[in-house]
Amino acid sequence: MAEDKTKTDEKYLLKNGRVLLKEMFDGLAYSYPVFDVYAESRVVGFRPKNQYKVNLLGGGGSGHEPYPFGYIGDGMLSASVSGHVFTCCSSLNIYQAIKYLNNYNRNAAILLIVANYTGDVFNFGLACEKAKKLDNINVAELVVADDCSRPGGKVGKRGMCGLLYVIKILGAMARQNTSLEELLSVGKEINNKLASLGISASSCNTPGEDPSFLLQRGEYEFGVGLHGEAGTSRIKASDVKGLIHLAVDKICGTLRIKESSTICLIVNNLGTVSHIELGALAKYTKEYFNELKINVNRMFVGTFIVSLNMYGFQISVLDVSNNPEWVDFIDEETSAFAWPGNNMSVKLTNKRNPAVIEIPTMDQITPNLGVSISEINASALKYILKSVAEVLLQNVEYLNKLDQEIGDGDNGSTISRFASELLVVLDRLPLTHPASVLDSLALICEDKMGGASGALYSLLLTGAAGYLASADQLDWTGALGRALETAMRYSSARKGDKTMFDPIIAVHEVFRENNEQLLANPNPGVYAGVLSKALRKVKNVCNALREIKAEFGKASYVESVTSVGKMDAGAHGVALWFEALCTAYADTCTACESKTPHTM
Amino acid sequence: MAEDKTKTDEKYLLKNGRVLLKEMFDGLAYSYPVFDVYAESRVVGFRPKNQYKVNLLGGGGSGHEPYPFGYIGDGMLSASVSGHVFTCCSSLNIYQAIKYLNNYNRNAAILLIVANYTGDVFNFGLACEKAKKLDNINVAELVVADDCSRPGGKVGKRGMCGLLYVIKILGAMARQNTSLEELLSVGKEINNKLASLGISASSCNTPGEDPSFLLQRGEYEFGVGLHGEAGTSRIKASDVKGLIHLAVDKICGTLRIKESSTICLIVNNLGTVSHIELGALAKYTKEYFNELKINVNRMFVGTFIVSLNMYGFQISVLDVSNNPEWVDFIDEETSAFAWPGNNMSVKLTNKRNPAVIEIPTMDQITPNLGVSISEINASALKYILKSVAEVLLQNVEYLNKLDQEIGDGDNGSTISRFASELLVVLDRLPLTHPASVLDSLALICEDKMGGASGALYSLLLTGAAGYLASADQLDWTGALGRALETAMRYSSARKGDKTMFDPIIAVHEVFRENNEQLLANPNPGVYAGVLSKALRKVKNVCNALREIKAEFGKASYVESVTSVGKMDAGAHGVALWFEALCTAYADTCTACESKTPHTM
Repeated sequence: MAEDKTKTDEKYLLKNGRVLLKEMFDGLAYSYPVFDVYAESRVVGFRPKNQYKVNLLGGGGSGHEPYPFGYIGDGMLSASVSGHVFTCCSSLNIYQAIKYLNNYNRNAAILLIVANYTGDVFNFGLACEKAKKLDNINVAELVVADDCSRPGGKVGKRGMCGLLYVIKILGAMARQNTSLEELLSVGKEINNKLASLGISASSCNTPGEDPSFLLQRGEYEFGVGLHGEAGTSRIKASDVKGLIHLAVDKICGTLRIKESSTICLIVNNLGTVSHIELGALAKYTKEYFNELKINVNRMFVGTFIVSLNMYGFQISVLDVSNNPEWVDFIDEETSAFAWPGNNMSVKLTNKRNPAVIEIPTMDQITPNLGVSISEINASALKYILKSVAEVLLQNVEYLNKLDQEIGDGDNGSTISRFASELLVVLDRLPLTHPASVLDSLALICEDKMGGASGALYSLLLTGAAGYLASADQLDWTGALGRALETAMRYSSARKGDKTMFDPIIAVHEVFRENNEQLLANPNPGVYAGVLSKALRKVKNVCNALREIKAEFGKASYVESVTSVGKMDAGAHGVALWFEALCTAYADTCTACESKTPHTM
Repeated sequence: MAEDKTKTDEKYLLKNGRVLLKEMFDGLAYSYPVFDVYAESRVVGFRPKNQYKVNLLGGGGSGHEPYPFGYIGDGMLSASVSGHVFTCCSSLNIYQAIKYLNNYNRNAAILLIVANYTGDVFNFGLACEKAKKLDNINVAELVVADDCSRPGGKVGKRGMCGLLYVIKILGAMARQNTSLEELLSVGKEINNKLASLGISASSCNTPGEDPSFLLQRGEYEFGVGLHGEAGTSRIKASDVKGLIHLAVDKICGTLRIKESSTICLIVNNLGTVSHIELGALAKYTKEYFNELKINVNRMFVGTFIVSLNMYGFQISVLDVSNNPEWVDFIDEETSAFAWPGNNMSVKLTNKRNPAVIEIPTMDQITPNLGVSISEINASALKYILKSVAEVLLQNVEYLNKLDQEIGDGDNGSTISRFASELLVVLDRLPLTHPASVLDSLALICEDKMGGASGALYSLLLTGAAGYLASADQLDWTGALGRALETAMRYSSARKGDKTMFDPIIAVHEVFRENNEQLLANPNPGVYAGVLSKALRKVKNVCNALREIKAEFGKASYVESVTSVGKMDAGAHGVALWFEALCTAYADTCTACESKTPHTM
């Protein structure tokens, strides 16, 4: 099926990758004005400020960006040249690049660094011959061949991501005024200590063209190159994790790396691997080297040299066991924009263990904040909390359903995580101290509900708790006011905006209107009266909200969702628990009528 | 069709993006050992060496990497915190990050920089409240809202790529010991001067899950956000180029940018746009600003903040017309690995025009290299070249067919470009000087054939020309030897490797065996005899090659291609033109028999 699958449903932003190439170089000239860009011939240069003995020139077909021009900068390449997409460079363009460098530094030799593809090797070679013959320039070609997926044979291995080690090390050496002969000789040594291997879950395509091969879901190409060509084998697997071991084994075999060898490691994105996957792939690779007791001294993870939009990656290893000086050259700074090392590159063995950061848990909440209440009132409070939790749990599906109409559909589920946890910890709550209880509830909302509504409830409860903690009596009006004030510091929703604030504002208004009476006579009768007024207002407010257009939440930004005529789940959730609270409070009054009057 | 299309053919390297998240943070700890990584809570920190007045903390849901941790470094963020994929951060984790920074710098205030998503704003707010209350830390929250695709309304615009300007400018200001109050105030000013807009040709998906929406080919989402949510409108277009104008107009309208305003520009890859496309998109964007006479002062093109693997991009503009100092802060160096500016960031108006680089053309070839031949011999040479070109053109399809079996299938087409050009320039060749003719042919091969074979022919011809240019007689044996020597400097193919070298080696061998005679008696009879011996050997060699396994070219690395029993197109091409040369030479001998004997 996948093999038959019409290729023409490929999406594109821009068509005709071959034409786009010139546009990219024009774009590059805009974004990196320090570069000299010859868009027609795909030559990019960076006028060297210092006059070293050798300048480095890199290049190859296009489609591998940020390679090569991303590695132009002091301490890496001085210029680069590109061919058409996945096509070798033209020797005429290479010769232009050589002449460009020679214009700025007549006495410097030029080292051409080339990945081992026949066309590139010949064309760079031809440009070499030409520059020697016509201009008497001291030029040499260094060919890099690191793909260990195949034996290589007479034609040699393909050049892959290992190029970057060569460019980085020789670039840093060139800055120390090293001669062409020595750079060539070290370059060949590096090449002998390099091995790379690519794996992909899809091919790539030039924008507007068809992919070069198709894989079915669960199939991986092992040993892919940099040009969309198929690999050495096609492997079925549940995911690519196991293939990393195969690749590492192949690399270690090729380089004859053993226990306690020291290596540098690159995990290179071949195109469209997300950072999340790439980071995980890097971890699996590193940990397999740990298992093999091979010491990874440096590790670079990123998008270094790609095969257009191939969904795959390459593992590239440099054995530095006998050449610790190479690591110093790798660590040196460079101004090249695509090299990620620099400041962040340090020896993996220098890894520090970060200190543990304590975050508050339920057990660490101060249990005696603010004024206390009697044991009887504490057990009434417990009863109320339990009732509220139970009512919320009974309404999970109903709240989800309301939320599906104009929100994300998870309001009930979110609130149920609070209610469930509340039932679990009920006995451990510091019930004689309402401020401490509110702090505990705030932590449950934060820890268990999560998301926007968990944070908002937590902000409300934190505000209320803070107020009660420093008040000399149980001033619920003040607590409600501080709750709203705290939450509104981070929300621009205000009265009438069809959010969960509306019913809370209603309760606060009724409490404020009756505040003198509540503070003067804090007895159950007065409380019950105020609560029942507040509940009526909450219900009226919630009904009125139906006809208002939502300004917050999903309904405010998804055009197709009409909020008018529909209930807001957040506001309705508040109404639900507030009604449960009022009912439970009335229950406790009835139960206690003949006993000590309680105040809340 | 596309809407129904089964989503399950998504390829993956690794499944379950939500589990992978922790793995990515473990991988990050390996690749950036300078970071303190708390993988479980997704907190990353960079122990500040300097004690400034304020440290910056950034964050948001995961799936946007390299944001946020890629911007940790001196001069940008000091720590970051991430939520689950496309899910707001938990306030507990944010609080941990605050505590982490406070551990290393007790006296510094902390500025939380948050993109405007309700969940993040509330959770960062809650962590703020907590840090103030529990630890007395001076913390403030700055919300960035720059998406101009929608009016924003009460909830405000969404936060997008504009975050980076805020982090870069405030980070550089913090390094100058600026106070929290001033950073907050400048941050709000920056936010008022920011506008961004996203466009995509596909949605994104968490690894192993389905994409969040589907587009048909040729459809674009305009106004996409950072979480795979659909945009404000769906537009059909032949490609995205025209939509850039729409986006820029919308941005300019939002910011009320006019002619001669000065802006900074970011063109941000939302995930899987290739560099070629991104560069072209950047060019189109910049040039539309040019048309509008708006001055783009800085331009950053790259992968800054993504929406997983979304195939789309964002344009983000900061109006710096009244705040040139912001540009200075943007230019300051930072060690953050994902910021590409630094050394390469200079004013676009400082753009230098690179010098023109001359490359040799046919007209510049020295016309009188080496020994000369008579006019009669020159016209014989012309006849031979013409015959060779014609024979090659007659065999284009045949050579392509041969090449299809064990190569790329383009051998005939490549060689035809040489033959056609040869016929065009025939009259302009410096025919009286064979060395100059060979140099001209080398240039035609280089310029018109291209690829590997063009370079190889050009190397052979360049070698031969070089030899003849300095020889005191027409020593074709020496020229053939030098030709092979030059080409083999860049190729590891040798005798018997089934390449185009084999027939040339055969000719060289026959010439070498008869060299004394040729040099002593350079007359047509001797030449004709040697040529006919050489032709027999070429034919024998080519026949024998059939049974050899190819070690070079496509057949050597594509397992499914069997080269044994098949002809090599490159070798056969040489045999073809050599036979044509021999026949034409014999023709000229016959024609000239009664005239002056010619020597070649």
